[in-house]
Amino acid sequence: MKIKDIGEFGFIKRIKSGCLIRDTNVIRGIGDDCCVFKTSGETAILLTTDMLVERIHFSLSAISPYELGRKSLAVNLSDIAAMGATPREAVISIAIPAKVDLAVLDGFYQGMKSMAREFAVNLLGGDTTSSPEHLVINVALVGEAKEDEILYRSGSRVGDLIFLTGPVGASAAGLDLILKGREMEGWEDLIEAHHNPYPHIDAGRIIAGMKVANSLIDVSDGVAADLGHICTESKLGAILEERMIPTTGKFKDYCKRFHEDPNQLSLHGGEDYVLLGTVVPGSANDLRAALESKGCTFYQIGHMVAEPGLKLRNSEDSLETIEAKGWDHFT
Amino acid sequence: MKIKDIGEFGFIKRIKSGCLIRDTNVIRGIGDDCCVFKTSGETAILLTTDMLVERIHFSLSAISPYELGRKSLAVNLSDIAAMGATPREAVISIAIPAKVDLAVLDGFYQGMKSMAREFAVNLLGGDTTSSPEHLVINVALVGEAKEDEILYRSGSRVGDLIFLTGPVGASAAGLDLILKGREMEGWEDLIEAHHNPYPHIDAGRIIAGMKVANSLIDVSDGVAADLGHICTESKLGAILEERMIPTTGKFKDYCKRFHEDPNQLSLHGGEDYVLLGTVVPGSANDLRAALESKGCTFYQIGHMVAEPGLKLRNSEDSLETIEAKGWDHFT
Repeated sequence: MKIKDIGEFGFIKRIKSGCLIRDTNVIRGIGDDCCVFKTSGETAILLTTDMLVERIHFSLSAISPYELGRKSLAVNLSDIAAMGATPREAVISIAIPAKVDLAVLDGFYQGMKSMAREFAVNLLGGDTTSSPEHLVINVALVGEAKEDEILYRSGSRVGDLIFLTGPVGASAAGLDLILKGREMEGWEDLIEAHHNPYPHIDAGRIIAGMKVANSLIDVSDGVAADLGHICTESKLGAILEERMIPTTGKFKDYCKRFHEDPNQLSLHGGEDYVLLGTVVPGSANDLRAALESKGCTFYQIGHMVAEPGLKLRNSEDSLETIEAKGWDHFT
Repeated sequence: MKIKDIGEFGFIKRIKSGCLIRDTNVIRGIGDDCCVFKTSGETAILLTTDMLVERIHFSLSAISPYELGRKSLAVNLSDIAAMGATPREAVISIAIPAKVDLAVLDGFYQGMKSMAREFAVNLLGGDTTSSPEHLVINVALVGEAKEDEILYRSGSRVGDLIFLTGPVGASAAGLDLILKGREMEGWEDLIEAHHNPYPHIDAGRIIAGMKVANSLIDVSDGVAADLGHICTESKLGAILEERMIPTTGKFKDYCKRFHEDPNQLSLHGGEDYVLLGTVVPGSANDLRAALESKGCTFYQIGHMVAEPGLKLRNSEDSLETIEAKGWDHFT
């Protein structure tokens, strides 16, 4: 069955149920010109948006519709996590080509709703339209936070310790394996890291609430590129310790098995959606303890310096300059 | 010059200036994971989103990039107007195929910024990505309103007078002319109505502030379809008076010249982006006076009835049933 069999309004009716995850503060959900909601008092409002385009961000032959739904919301949740905020209400635009089966769309919305439930995010509306050829998804997500708890890319200071809230590289290794058409058996963890990333909302809230971090970003473009954003916005440089970059066992196995450069994948790969931040050195242990007590992780990977640029202390204990470049959609 | 010549971040730098239209309540604009802002105290927040897809919603050979930028924001502003609210902050996602010249994108953002300035709306960020073939634009727009002033599609009562805040049909006639490849000379007003619609934010604010209207929507799908939404949400029916449907002189000329059915275009055409609402009969004259005193217009076109369905009293003074159907992207 295709969407033409039920029409635009039939489709909206079909996906509507299960979209209101939490009714606190929601005044009007799906079914009017706008959705309407309140925030809880004296908070600041955050707004983020991300677009996923078929053949650019995903291939329906590689990712399942359910995972695509989860990931479409997850990448936006990760932006809210990167500010230390709490996600609240989302609207979804989707442009659907005639070829897409309704079962694909059902799976997509099931995935999106499952992610929404995990973070108490409402899906309050959106826009449904046709597309000449490619599936296009856009999510806009509103979050809230106390103004003095919000963490930006700017704000980092000389001497700050640089940390990650999870291992990196597995998502890039998963994509590498898919693009090179390698056998997937045994590497499911890497594929999963790429197709089903988990936003670090809890870690973001803990980091923001402790008020000891000076900057925060999520790793979407890659550690080097995203640390580059912090450096640029904070007008500083950074030194990374190669031996301290956290990666998983499967990731190490993959690099060894296929002779892939681990640094290339872990530092320049991207789409890990863990958090990358900087913290006052004297508070690093407190932050680690707070994160670990809630089941989150903390990996110290380097420190901020006054001299601009990124350097990596490699296995021979010498400093090599690394490029802050990550993914650019156009060059 | 194409976008690959300057890259994603070069492009963001290029479009960044002129995006912050009003700095009140804005905490962080373009350049972080989210934008951050406050609302003015005890208000409700509204969120709307609309996606425009090349070859579905527009053709770059027909609309100018400047008009496309204006229209992309205008259709979202119209949704905020339809709730009687005030527009505030916007984020824009754009998926750009390699073929698109940078001059097209410059024109697009100039148009969007011109519309933003007219309504004091900030462009606070978004997402820039590549596209395999078609240009796709998504705008998410936040507005605010006092909760007790917001107008919904539901809420209409039996006996309410139905009104429009402007003439209808010109946009559909403009599209008709373009699609049929007719000579444009002399019909610029119709093309303009289709390519450069003006959102009725001022009228929406006046209507909401007076608290005499029971329901409100903007005419995007067409008078019949959008009145159908009010009827469905309010569980009522409506009778329209054919002779009272406001259309422009050029529209009448066009229908006469090319033997087009005026009712088809004015009632089922859509994309007029005027407001359609219902008002308590005793307050209609007050509402008209308030709108006209601020340069807005008010056209009474029918009334709400208990019996479901839409009827049109035609030129022979007989009631004919009309379909509430308008544009459906899929059927």
